[in-house]
Amino acid sequence: MNSDAIAQLRAGNPRAVARAISAMERGGASAREIVTAIFRYTGRAHIVGVTGAPGTGKSTLVNEIAKHYRRRGQRVGIVAVDPTSPFSGGAILGDRLRMQDLSGDDGVFIRSMATRGAFGGLAAATSDAVKVLDAAGFEIVLVETVGAGQNEVEIARNAHTTIVVEAPGMGDDIQAIKAGIMEIADLLIVNKADRDEVSATVAALEMNLNLKPKAENDWRPPVLKTIATTGEGVADAVEWIGKHRAYLEANHLLEVRERARCRAELELIVQRELMARLLRGVNGAKIEMLVEQIAAREVDVYAAAERLIG
Amino acid sequence: MNSDAIAQLRAGNPRAVARAISAMERGGASAREIVTAIFRYTGRAHIVGVTGAPGTGKSTLVNEIAKHYRRRGQRVGIVAVDPTSPFSGGAILGDRLRMQDLSGDDGVFIRSMATRGAFGGLAAATSDAVKVLDAAGFEIVLVETVGAGQNEVEIARNAHTTIVVEAPGMGDDIQAIKAGIMEIADLLIVNKADRDEVSATVAALEMNLNLKPKAENDWRPPVLKTIATTGEGVADAVEWIGKHRAYLEANHLLEVRERARCRAELELIVQRELMARLLRGVNGAKIEMLVEQIAAREVDVYAAAERLIG
Repeated sequence: MNSDAIAQLRAGNPRAVARAISAMERGGASAREIVTAIFRYTGRAHIVGVTGAPGTGKSTLVNEIAKHYRRRGQRVGIVAVDPTSPFSGGAILGDRLRMQDLSGDDGVFIRSMATRGAFGGLAAATSDAVKVLDAAGFEIVLVETVGAGQNEVEIARNAHTTIVVEAPGMGDDIQAIKAGIMEIADLLIVNKADRDEVSATVAALEMNLNLKPKAENDWRPPVLKTIATTGEGVADAVEWIGKHRAYLEANHLLEVRERARCRAELELIVQRELMARLLRGVNGAKIEMLVEQIAAREVDVYAAAERLIG
Repeated sequence: MNSDAIAQLRAGNPRAVARAISAMERGGASAREIVTAIFRYTGRAHIVGVTGAPGTGKSTLVNEIAKHYRRRGQRVGIVAVDPTSPFSGGAILGDRLRMQDLSGDDGVFIRSMATRGAFGGLAAATSDAVKVLDAAGFEIVLVETVGAGQNEVEIARNAHTTIVVEAPGMGDDIQAIKAGIMEIADLLIVNKADRDEVSATVAALEMNLNLKPKAENDWRPPVLKTIATTGEGVADAVEWIGKHRAYLEANHLLEVRERARCRAELELIVQRELMARLLRGVNGAKIEMLVEQIAAREVDVYAAAERLIG
């Protein structure tokens, strides 16, 4: 990208933004170049992670939150992370469906991210896409992730405010997920709040929160109810995002989170770069030979790793 | 572990097995030592990955499959991978609940794995736990994972046979997940098949399978129905696991899968080891200084990574 393209990106031109994010997905030298060019313009957006199990209605909720910000005149970027899409091409379809809902508005930019094979590639591409939207002047960037796996937790760590979405009556497994992922929640939202079991779900979440000892000035995640399909409760959710931001600022925690974010990203990039360098220096045939020996149980996998690293 | 402990492990002594798996979770030198000692005794177990979204009843189904194998006199190991448990200690609770159901039987060993912080740590510990059970003579090892994230896909890649569990009527998001994760399925199981929407779910899965062009001798995943809570359909599922194994053997695909498994594991270990070596060689203060500079937007994160690697 030349300086003209960077200027267009900073002005929020949708094509320039789209092109830059595509470069981030491809990775490599041109992605690096863009990051170098835009890095100094980042750090202004409020990054909101939204995570939750399938079926909770996250996507609809994220759309409604975006619309609410738009009504207030704020520019919103949405990055939807779908770890399953490498197989399906589902991300592109999803984008189109969502675009219909929010189309014709340059104040919103929506992009689904699909992994491009490499280990850690999705998390890195997502971070870089957020940087593009940040540099392009989107004040709020919503990062939506499916599921509750380690990857999702990593991506949530890259947010200033993390929203965990639940739905009432999703079965027994949900309890365990909830217990695990609640630690990262700044806001808990029970969506589909028109369902019967909503009060039981809210009560379970509140109880779980009460179990955890907190220091006096710690943030206590609110448990909110929304019906994303009708927009009910969304204004309240947006207000709580603002309250959380204000809390972080008042307690100088925004810097703490920002440093943690930067540290996590640095580690990820170092890890990928180390691997890339090793692979450049090693003969592919040597790797295949080692794999054969492991499969034949002639060499154990740790010993093989050592031989490879040398 | 001394040679006596290794002998006890190979004899299937539950305490020796439990101790070895705990060492795997902790990682480090003693985990490596155990792998080196047992590696030559591995490669015998049939590794069955079971994955699916929360609420599908996977755990109950896995228990029922294990019981069915036990009735046939086969020894079964279960590794339940819960990527959310680092926060909650939920894994241990889950183990206890499940133990009640299958307790007092040395022919079954159940263990939940929780990640121990490090990047890729859970996948590595899981692989190593499977090796322990394999070396301890468990003929079938069931690896159960929650969700459909990239991590879960990685863990499923470590199986010879992968089962994807669905439940009827889990909401709209499920469609996308299904589309993504179906590529890794050798068996598709619609559990909770006493629910109304079961035929719609089965039909959707079958349709999706039909969309994919297959070569003549390709494996076509069956779509099975189970009600894990009553055991209905479980015998059929076990029979299909056996058919898939026979298919792999007849087409020399077991070796292909085994090599892919070994390659993935080798990569993971190399990646972690490279990072560990880098961190040993770098001053912690230098890393913190770089993080400060990134947070202040004085250095971009890729440039910082380069300085660290040097």
